[in-house]
Amino acid sequence: MAEAAVARRSRITPEREAELYEAVLDLLREVGYDALTMDAVAARTRSSKATLYRQWGGKAELVVKAVRHSKPGKTGEIDTGTLRGDLHALVELDDDCTIEQNSALMRGVAMAMHNNADLRRVFRDQFIEPEMAEFRRVIQRAVDRGEVRPDCPALDFLLHMLVGGFATRALLDDQPPSRAFLLSYIDAVVLPALGVPTP
Amino acid sequence: MAEAAVARRSRITPEREAELYEAVLDLLREVGYDALTMDAVAARTRSSKATLYRQWGGKAELVVKAVRHSKPGKTGEIDTGTLRGDLHALVELDDDCTIEQNSALMRGVAMAMHNNADLRRVFRDQFIEPEMAEFRRVIQRAVDRGEVRPDCPALDFLLHMLVGGFATRALLDDQPPSRAFLLSYIDAVVLPALGVPTP
Repeated sequence: MAEAAVARRSRITPEREAELYEAVLDLLREVGYDALTMDAVAARTRSSKATLYRQWGGKAELVVKAVRHSKPGKTGEIDTGTLRGDLHALVELDDDCTIEQNSALMRGVAMAMHNNADLRRVFRDQFIEPEMAEFRRVIQRAVDRGEVRPDCPALDFLLHMLVGGFATRALLDDQPPSRAFLLSYIDAVVLPALGVPTP
Repeated sequence: MAEAAVARRSRITPEREAELYEAVLDLLREVGYDALTMDAVAARTRSSKATLYRQWGGKAELVVKAVRHSKPGKTGEIDTGTLRGDLHALVELDDDCTIEQNSALMRGVAMAMHNNADLRRVFRDQFIEPEMAEFRRVIQRAVDRGEVRPDCPALDFLLHMLVGGFATRALLDDQPPSRAFLLSYIDAVVLPALGVPTP
């Protein structure tokens, strides 16, 4: 297994991989998930479809990897000493422009997910689970510090709260989520639900 | 204005109107919003397109009215004496089967909304605003009773919390929202965010 993984990874360089993901995201923004084809990715990146399938397995895997790759991923470095500080720092990793772009990208993928059980599975396994693992570390530290009770019922709905706020902003208010919106939402909803006092 | 409204409404009976909305919802479930045409509605209901346009103005208006009409709309009769009681009673208006159907319908409309500013406007004016007016009455009674502080920051995010929980259930957990899920979510997230103690 380990040998196979190395052999598979060694076929392309990290630079080439980043270039490919960028092309996939460009196509995703241009045509949306449903109309995006492996043929178009192959043409845009001058690679063979065989290589794409060998490397990623399929369109859902490739798109989810590309979306995940677009996140700066400095989450692991955040440790401010309070839950509020950590959640604010997470929001502040991105500027408003990046948040808006991510929101548009995620909307495109979420729309496709509704009709596509395969994409939902890949998205859960390769996007939500790794993201949740990061969040669980942040929350576990808050529990260890005594900020959040280990049996707090809102812990079961962490992702529903966070994704819900992010996703409903565009739908309900006809504007993309911004840093200011997300920070207010964390202070007004997420922290009180977790029993953490806010200033 | 009042005369015009009466003249416009008087063209079809309430029974015929209900029949039309049912046909629109059937079509919506069958083909989705984007593929639903006024031609198909006219054919299915044996009405003329001219009548449909005169009565509803356009596809977005007709679909949103049909979705809104599908809700039992007994919200106004609920007044249990506590916010928790009122929110639970709201959820319990529908059984799991109806909640699942509504969830599928709303997903279909929400998907179309992402690419359709006209539908977003009509949906906000004719669905979200009337629904919010109901919620505001429920919440205002809770504020008047002293259950919720009038300056509680979560009041600005009421709809984001509620729609977020409802909408993310299918996306994140691959199962439709149920009564049990919504009641737990209200107790774990919505009430604590509003500063209302739960048992």
